[in-house]
Amino acid sequence: MMQPATTTTADLSATGAVLPRKMRALAKTAPGPGFELVELPVPTPGPAEVLVRVAAGGICGTDLHIYRWDPWARSRIRPPRVIGHEFTGTVVAVGDGVTEIAVGERIAGESHVACGWCSRCRHGEAHICERLVMIGGDLDGAFADYVAIPARNAWRLGADIPTEIAAIMDPLGNAVHTALATDIVARTVAVIGCGPIGLMAIPVCRMAGAALVVASDISPGRLALARQMGADVVLDARTDNVPERIRALTDGQGVDVVLEMSGHQAALRDGLRAVRNGGWVGLLGLPAASVELDLANDVILKAVRLEGIFGRRLWQTWEQMTALLRRGLDVAPVITHRFPLERFAEALALLESGQAGKVILTLES
Amino acid sequence: MMQPATTTTADLSATGAVLPRKMRALAKTAPGPGFELVELPVPTPGPAEVLVRVAAGGICGTDLHIYRWDPWARSRIRPPRVIGHEFTGTVVAVGDGVTEIAVGERIAGESHVACGWCSRCRHGEAHICERLVMIGGDLDGAFADYVAIPARNAWRLGADIPTEIAAIMDPLGNAVHTALATDIVARTVAVIGCGPIGLMAIPVCRMAGAALVVASDISPGRLALARQMGADVVLDARTDNVPERIRALTDGQGVDVVLEMSGHQAALRDGLRAVRNGGWVGLLGLPAASVELDLANDVILKAVRLEGIFGRRLWQTWEQMTALLRRGLDVAPVITHRFPLERFAEALALLESGQAGKVILTLES
Amino acid sequence: MMQPATTTTADLSATGAVLPRKMRALAKTAPGPGFELVELPVPTPGPAEVLVRVAAGGICGTDLHIYRWDPWARSRIRPPRVIGHEFTGTVVAVGDGVTEIAVGERIAGESHVACGWCSRCRHGEAHICERLVMIGGDLDGAFADYVAIPARNAWRLGADIPTEIAAIMDPLGNAVHTALATDIVARTVAVIGCGPIGLMAIPVCRMAGAALVVASDISPGRLALARQMGADVVLDARTDNVPERIRALTDGQGVDVVLEMSGHQAALRDGLRAVRNGGWVGLLGLPAASVELDLANDVILKAVRLEGIFGRRLWQTWEQMTALLRRGLDVAPVITHRFPLERFAEALALLESGQAGKVILTLES
Amino acid sequence: MMQPATTTTADLSATGAVLPRKMRALAKTAPGPGFELVELPVPTPGPAEVLVRVAAGGICGTDLHIYRWDPWARSRIRPPRVIGHEFTGTVVAVGDGVTEIAVGERIAGESHVACGWCSRCRHGEAHICERLVMIGGDLDGAFADYVAIPARNAWRLGADIPTEIAAIMDPLGNAVHTALATDIVARTVAVIGCGPIGLMAIPVCRMAGAALVVASDISPGRLALARQMGADVVLDARTDNVPERIRALTDGQGVDVVLEMSGHQAALRDGLRAVRNGGWVGLLGLPAASVELDLANDVILKAVRLEGIFGRRLWQTWEQMTALLRRGLDVAPVITHRFPLERFAEALALLESGQAGKVILTLES
Repeated sequence: MMQPATTTTADLSATGAVLPRKMRALAKTAPGPGFELVELPVPTPGPAEVLVRVAAGGICGTDLHIYRWDPWARSRIRPPRVIGHEFTGTVVAVGDGVTEIAVGERIAGESHVACGWCSRCRHGEAHICERLVMIGGDLDGAFADYVAIPARNAWRLGADIPTEIAAIMDPLGNAVHTALATDIVARTVAVIGCGPIGLMAIPVCRMAGAALVVASDISPGRLALARQMGADVVLDARTDNVPERIRALTDGQGVDVVLEMSGHQAALRDGLRAVRNGGWVGLLGLPAASVELDLANDVILKAVRLEGIFGRRLWQTWEQMTALLRRGLDVAPVITHRFPLERFAEALALLESGQAGKVILTLES
Repeated sequence: MMQPATTTTADLSATGAVLPRKMRALAKTAPGPGFELVELPVPTPGPAEVLVRVAAGGICGTDLHIYRWDPWARSRIRPPRVIGHEFTGTVVAVGDGVTEIAVGERIAGESHVACGWCSRCRHGEAHICERLVMIGGDLDGAFADYVAIPARNAWRLGADIPTEIAAIMDPLGNAVHTALATDIVARTVAVIGCGPIGLMAIPVCRMAGAALVVASDISPGRLALARQMGADVVLDARTDNVPERIRALTDGQGVDVVLEMSGHQAALRDGLRAVRNGGWVGLLGLPAASVELDLANDVILKAVRLEGIFGRRLWQTWEQMTALLRRGLDVAPVITHRFPLERFAEALALLESGQAGKVILTLES
Repeated sequence: MMQPATTTTADLSATGAVLPRKMRALAKTAPGPGFELVELPVPTPGPAEVLVRVAAGGICGTDLHIYRWDPWARSRIRPPRVIGHEFTGTVVAVGDGVTEIAVGERIAGESHVACGWCSRCRHGEAHICERLVMIGGDLDGAFADYVAIPARNAWRLGADIPTEIAAIMDPLGNAVHTALATDIVARTVAVIGCGPIGLMAIPVCRMAGAALVVASDISPGRLALARQMGADVVLDARTDNVPERIRALTDGQGVDVVLEMSGHQAALRDGLRAVRNGGWVGLLGLPAASVELDLANDVILKAVRLEGIFGRRLWQTWEQMTALLRRGLDVAPVITHRFPLERFAEALALLESGQAGKVILTLES
Repeated sequence: MMQPATTTTADLSATGAVLPRKMRALAKTAPGPGFELVELPVPTPGPAEVLVRVAAGGICGTDLHIYRWDPWARSRIRPPRVIGHEFTGTVVAVGDGVTEIAVGERIAGESHVACGWCSRCRHGEAHICERLVMIGGDLDGAFADYVAIPARNAWRLGADIPTEIAAIMDPLGNAVHTALATDIVARTVAVIGCGPIGLMAIPVCRMAGAALVVASDISPGRLALARQMGADVVLDARTDNVPERIRALTDGQGVDVVLEMSGHQAALRDGLRAVRNGGWVGLLGLPAASVELDLANDVILKAVRLEGIFGRRLWQTWEQMTALLRRGLDVAPVITHRFPLERFAEALALLESGQAGKVILTLES
């Protein structure tokens, strides 16, 4: 929930720096389409929280859903709410009991806040916490000069990760979590759907030692980008018979691994028909409606394994991302545009046009 | 392919016993519905094969499909073909190069014949061999006094496993393979669908240390049998809200494991809604047509894992079955009827009526 | 560290019950052998802590090390320190921020306190936290009328687990963690060493579906108890050739799984020689000194896997224990003696004599 | 066993090419040190065997043991025996029943012959077959113009793998099997011991996405080669404190993975002290004698997992090798010398001097 306008937040910083009382924030101020750029008090970090000066953020498809106020957004979001959940910045104040992270540290934000107590959390599966809430959706978000988040959700960065990349580590984490949820080394992989997460999965698979990476999409621009990101073969699903082409590339067997990044029924079927007996299919793309599957022939008789992928493993995925970025993982090509916060409407319009890869909002100059 | 009628097979046995030249066999003699009881020459075991004197067999749903000559059967079966793939008997002759199994040994038959050379076979996944063929479907089967099978497909039995149980180790293997494809100990399980394989999975889960076994079906008779087999709770899917009841039994979370044994869309959805975040669903029941799934909510956002289950692991499942049977696994209650081979028509009619559990054909008196 | 004597702790309880200011506590008051029963202030629960009224505790081998003040104890323990880390009781007060557990709840204590922030904790492996500390060793312990522990270390019990069993869930957790660190169902197991943890592992393996459980020890009394706990075969390592006997029981191959519970070099070697090619050996027993192993022949050429087992998985093991106890896991026979706290010296002497199984100290009448 | 001298083998080839009757072979002709270059009949492939015209072979440490006639060799080898088990060549004839491989195909040889029937083989673990025999040790080997091997032991090569590399795929397989027996991607690895197998493991780990590869040895030449093969850091165990240096490189935790390739006790201890809590240690190097380990502190209290590595997984490792070589895996630098078969004595002397990496014997010009 957004803070009431009368809150003051002066002089919180352990460095002695005086923080401003007011800040810019991009918010859904009331039910209905659109966002508004408003002035709000700088939040105060509660116990076990840190206050982050936001440097940059990435716009996610989820933000578009909230912007449009579609059925999912209507059922989930309770305005007023500051939005934005992919972000990076610097810790400027810490709440009571925060000992593991200090003022001045650069961080990237994990958007999923886990309860720490449910059975999933107690099994080391906090990414599928039974009571998960989302920064920038259920809690006030990061398209603002400052955001207060649980200290646990602040991933400490070294100086070596550029701000723009740090701003998209949350979706990069989706890509890494999907790709590394199964063995990749010396195995053949098909990435079905080349949006930003699919695209980022390509070099992750290459770095993890994939024997072959095939990528498919229906957009020539995205396929060109897929090739740039390291796909060995790109297939245009409008004209190529994807399962047949993939079988031809794999001695007739099909690929070992499919990463389903599109959420489209036809693409999902292509993926299921392209995977070998006993293969593995990671499902990340969210279908907008029910899908019809030939479960008998495409899954059961082939002994295929399907795995729903949600969020990022807390915190294995973050360690993996950090290691891969330090080894040279290059996902910069997916970032196609940058806008200052004030030009958010342009950024959203561009995203809606389908002409952009990842779009960054910059908050600090 | 059935042997031409002029073949003779006298005196094959290493024991010196003279084998008869002719035998009874239940066969699909020509395209179209029905089976015929015919007289055929006793087959000769080829290299690496054994000849088995069949003691008893189990009738499978697949046999019904072939009997009715449904679309699947028409596309797959090439008459004339002796049918029957669940069976037990005694080795009476061995072909060239057979050293690991001897005349006089009791065996149960594995119906799936793997090539031994494809990538799956070479990975220790012969159960999903790329060139798999089936005894009693692609090869002549075991509803006959004698059947010649690859020596590898003959699982040696001790004296402690009764003939009737040995006759159904092939479908028991489906149950064991499904249940033991994931961890069961100290975990909660729902068995969706209580046909013979679902029913047999119940005591397997109990022996494997399940914390809770819930079974659901739409037949009161099957649910009574489920309780007899050891289900802690049985749910009637006609009147119970299965997912809600299961959540109530599991602190609101859902079960750790679902074994989908029905192949029905509504039951599958119940299973998906009854499984917890990050849970595992084994899919054995074969839907007759495409199914519509809410993949986003029921699989992806819950990070559920689905695994298609086919056949039996060669030969881990057979070792597991043997060990469990020796420990007291009791699946005898699923066998509800026995018929001599000649009364096959009665047996098939009973099965079609839905009034039977497992039906045994006896060949040796 | 023990609280200074001037602390007062009146009226903490949310139930309105007034707590006493003083309590009995068994403590190492100064470097050197022995324990002393002292009067101390009842501790105050800090933030995220709960105060537990202790009902009963179990004496562990570690307590004996501290009692004797052996080299390990001298290097680790900083007196004054209240000892005791296996315990059960009732929450009587909660500190700030405790929301998941309430006054009046029965709990069993987990003795290992994890930091929650190191890489292991963040990977869901809190049981091997890089900064682990131990209640009753590094922190004041539970052989006292009251103990303040992190709320996270209090495992909520239903009414169905008896106090004596709850008092030894910490070591039962060692047994469960060891046994369930690998697959047990339908596999053959050797439990090497039949102290309390080895003994408790036997029925755990039985409930998890073990095909065979062989137990070995050098004490006839313990072997009798092993048989009572469900071992199929017991071997006296003084007179039996353990690896040969085990091979004879397993078609010459050796067991699938060895649980090494003794910490003795000769027993460990027996275990390694008794395990099959590719088998798994869980190492729980702590050798007092270096051990000499024929690593080439007993591990490498056999492709054996060894796994060091420490503590209990937080919190999978606790869930598993709870489920197994509810299913009827009976470990009561390992409890051979009970003493009120005041008779601690008798209890320790008995344990040192080797004539006891598990010894319970009772604090509440 | 070698063929008797009177056997003739003319005109076996399906291509119509006439094979010679005699061939050169390097053999242990009688108990005692040394090898002899002899003339022997070209062997005839039996059922399910292929006859290979050998192009090149690699000399293994095992060959040196046989040459020196050390205690292990005396206990295992029964002269007369042709030696050599790392090799490549072309199929020139096939025995009865061979359908999966044809005359004219290039192959690399797998030296371990599995029975196909024991419990391990039936579990897909043929590499640890209970009745394993070794080409060039228990069976006649490949340091000869021709060798007859089971068709299953001939791994078909494309044209893209150079002969010299194909000649050492057997030991490369050890390296790949060790490295890929655990997850490597985004994890830190220490390779302890930089003989040819340790050296080859370095680029395998790099291709599999290792976050860091540290290599240690006591030979400056090998360390230089380790750096050339892609190690990020090389440590000289004579002067560096290996565990301390590794902890300093890994935030004080230790590496995730250790590949123990040396078989030396001090190096093994370094590895155990360098691995983090819960880390994994692959044991490939064979100690010549018993080793003394601080199992309590270095394994159990740290919950470390040790895994003995033997041979190569049949046939996953061969698929992995092929895929990695096609992706550019470069192990050529480990090959330091080549000799024609006649100069075997020089080759063996060089190897004994410790001045060589991998030494190749060439048979075809």
